Amino acid sequence: MREMKLSRAFTLIEPGPVVLVTTRDKGRSNIMTISWIMVQDFTPVFALVTGSWNYSFAALRKTKECVIAIPTVDMLDQVVGIGTCSGGDTDKFAKFGVTAVAGKAVGAPLIAECLANIECKVIDLIQRHDIVMLEGVVAHIDVGRKEKRMLHAVGDGTFVADGRKYDRKKMMATKLPTGL
Amino acid sequence: MREMKLSRAFTLIEPGPVVLVTTRDKGRSNIMTISWIMVQDFTPVFALVTGSWNYSFAALRKTKECVIAIPTVDMLDQVVGIGTCSGGDTDKFAKFGVTAVAGKAVGAPLIAECLANIECKVIDLIQRHDIVMLEGVVAHIDVGRKEKRMLHAVGDGTFVADGRKYDRKKMMATKLPTGL
Repeated sequence: MREMKLSRAFTLIEPGPVVLVTTRDKGRSNIMTISWIMVQDFTPVFALVTGSWNYSFAALRKTKECVIAIPTVDMLDQVVGIGTCSGGDTDKFAKFGVTAVAGKAVGAPLIAECLANIECKVIDLIQRHDIVMLEGVVAHIDVGRKEKRMLHAVGDGTFVADGRKYDRKKMMATKLPTGL
Repeated sequence: MREMKLSRAFTLIEPGPVVLVTTRDKGRSNIMTISWIMVQDFTPVFALVTGSWNYSFAALRKTKECVIAIPTVDMLDQVVGIGTCSGGDTDKFAKFGVTAVAGKAVGAPLIAECLANIECKVIDLIQRHDIVMLEGVVAHIDVGRKEKRMLHAVGDGTFVADGRKYDRKKMMATKLPTGL
């Protein structure tokens, strides 16, 4: 995994993938599966929906740090497994065979098996809508990884993997930041 | 296009597709392409990022109504075209050959060519983050449509279509609302 340009980090979230969000508090790391996340701008600022129904929320609110890890289709059963048990009684890294790796800027760990990881700081909480605003501070990507297809949750227990790609960079040139 | 259960409308947005958002004000309908949208819950409440940089924003703020239309992969060039010109000087329905159809609950039109349409009311504005909170009130789906693959924007001018599907309903049963 190597560092990627932070200005490109939003391109990991804009397609709408399911993500894994790690936190670390009192020497324990945890992971939650989240599909309710969106890009905020052409900057590494993201809006995430979470709240006290997620065990990780207390650590996120207290430490104001997390890592957004991007899993791929080969990790589907880990993603679902992580999302259907609680860090309150489970060491999810051990149970689901994923590897915590120290980040550079936050205490929450990267997940080594993921396609990419974005170290984030909490910059705001919009409590009336359970929205947490995050700013990415360091981004990492595994450029050598063969499987790069992200997963999208439909919300009814089914998932869709990335399919065919289309390039419309020329048509969109006027609307995109330079240097992407 | 026929009405679908409103309780399933979030399954159209949770996968993270690019959407078309229609508004109507002073007898003129308009469309914007939006990729910055997320589900808020297992309810038809959505968070959308928009602001004064979108011509439609004034109509959305004034009328407090819009329609979220879900295009599919065969509509890619219309989606990009709609997103790269302004309703200030363009009748996008005429220019991009899409058909406005009256909804049931809001003044903004449905788009006949889309896979699905969700009529929405604005329920909150979070101005410091340019987030508009929407609640779907009626949802429609074209069940006979053959092309159902949604589009995901990467954000750099490339797009990804829906690919292979996976069913994990059994694994997720404890986490999903009943009746989905």
